[in-house]
Amino acid sequence: MSEKSIVSLQKIREVIKERMKNIKYKIMVLSGKGGVGKSMVTANLAVALSLKGYDVAILDADLHGPTIPKMFGIENETITGFSAGIIPVTTGNKISIVSIDFMLPSEDTPVVWRGPIKTKAIMEFLSSVVWGCKDFLLIDLPPGTGDEALSIAQFIPNVDGVVIVTIPSLVSQHVVRKAISFAQKLDIPILGIIENMSYFRCPQCGQIHYIFGEKGGEAIAEEMNIDFLGAIPIDRRIAECSDRGESFLVKYPDSEIAKSFMNIAEQIIKKVENRKNG
Amino acid sequence: MSEKSIVSLQKIREVIKERMKNIKYKIMVLSGKGGVGKSMVTANLAVALSLKGYDVAILDADLHGPTIPKMFGIENETITGFSAGIIPVTTGNKISIVSIDFMLPSEDTPVVWRGPIKTKAIMEFLSSVVWGCKDFLLIDLPPGTGDEALSIAQFIPNVDGVVIVTIPSLVSQHVVRKAISFAQKLDIPILGIIENMSYFRCPQCGQIHYIFGEKGGEAIAEEMNIDFLGAIPIDRRIAECSDRGESFLVKYPDSEIAKSFMNIAEQIIKKVENRKNG
Repeated sequence: MSEKSIVSLQKIREVIKERMKNIKYKIMVLSGKGGVGKSMVTANLAVALSLKGYDVAILDADLHGPTIPKMFGIENETITGFSAGIIPVTTGNKISIVSIDFMLPSEDTPVVWRGPIKTKAIMEFLSSVVWGCKDFLLIDLPPGTGDEALSIAQFIPNVDGVVIVTIPSLVSQHVVRKAISFAQKLDIPILGIIENMSYFRCPQCGQIHYIFGEKGGEAIAEEMNIDFLGAIPIDRRIAECSDRGESFLVKYPDSEIAKSFMNIAEQIIKKVENRKNG
Repeated sequence: MSEKSIVSLQKIREVIKERMKNIKYKIMVLSGKGGVGKSMVTANLAVALSLKGYDVAILDADLHGPTIPKMFGIENETITGFSAGIIPVTTGNKISIVSIDFMLPSEDTPVVWRGPIKTKAIMEFLSSVVWGCKDFLLIDLPPGTGDEALSIAQFIPNVDGVVIVTIPSLVSQHVVRKAISFAQKLDIPILGIIENMSYFRCPQCGQIHYIFGEKGGEAIAEEMNIDFLGAIPIDRRIAECSDRGESFLVKYPDSEIAKSFMNIAEQIIKKVENRKNG
């Protein structure tokens, strides 16, 4: 890379920092592997924080599909660029969303740009977002611990913590270790582990089935000496809400899932506040 | 990139081609998104082809964890390098396996090398594998349609077809479109779509639950004018077998899943043979 382009990347980084200076807490949501429901967890955690009265924004930095916009029913929205910069899209529940997918040309375009070009484009895009004053910014990273997650993680300044999402199976526990190692290398504190798809309660007979294994998230949390934030059961209504762009927590506030997310949100608030004040 | 390194990459590509010249059919397994069970599908498809009497090899090119070796219970094996090159590990059911994870130093190391270095290392690794004579090579690509999947896909010569794995939910259908577009850009024929986690049959009461949505895989296949190869239901015993490194198809040959995989294998054999002979 030439000296000139390093200088320009450095400048972009500074602009991003300036743009994010009025965000109180920045939290990354990471998984060692895709498909564990990281985006679902990010979206519902944002809703939980918002229901608790906080101003919340989401940066959907997962390049493999506009999952977050779709979950909030805003996938057909376009971001508006003013001279001041790009303004996030606001959802019905007042969450501000910026998705990297918004900058892609068409729904069917796979992201086949090569690394360096893509990283630069993402950085330029990010450096023009007008976030304003927010209590929380949740960052939905690309799955895994590869280049994409690393590139994006590196140019978001002063991240307050990482939440790791996993599913219970042992095969997946294996990759959680990589996620923990990734967070440690980036020197970002790990707030804890959320276990998704923990079990399925048959709506017909009430029997609980540990489809993807039993309590693997708790086991790995204990083994790695990391807090276990909570378990989210499997619920077909989650997929239905996601597909329709409806908020599960608003629609089913008394569900096990909603209670679990509210509890997890509370733990995260305490953790980041203690860290900032202590 | 300097002229010299382009020449050297070109040379590595030629060596890989030479190394793979006695493999009859090369099939890539792709997903638009992680966590849809792509590696599980690859592993069981390999077993199904092997049970039908074919010589099968797997290239586990998914960098985010040694899922394939773990599923076959060979994650602690090390590949042996002779002067002739690297010899794949052979499983109990005589499937030859090479995992890119074998070249990584430790279980907990996340892949945080930057793109170009990583690609070169992978290519050099691949160029030294002694595959020998095989009927089928299944290539488990990294999830998604990003740089990693693209880099690896690009340096495997003369691929006979792509199988796309998805789950039924609509949110995931969205990303299937990206996978199709990805295969088309690489100019590899699409053999069809496999829908994983299609439904869950409660072992207690027998009720079928479409946990992740109903028949989304069939719908997207029809919409995109692509063959639907089959549906794989959710079965807790799959996770158990994966965790223990046991072969599900050998252990439960009469299960719905086993029958579905045997049927899918048959369709794939017909398709590639017709293509080669026609």
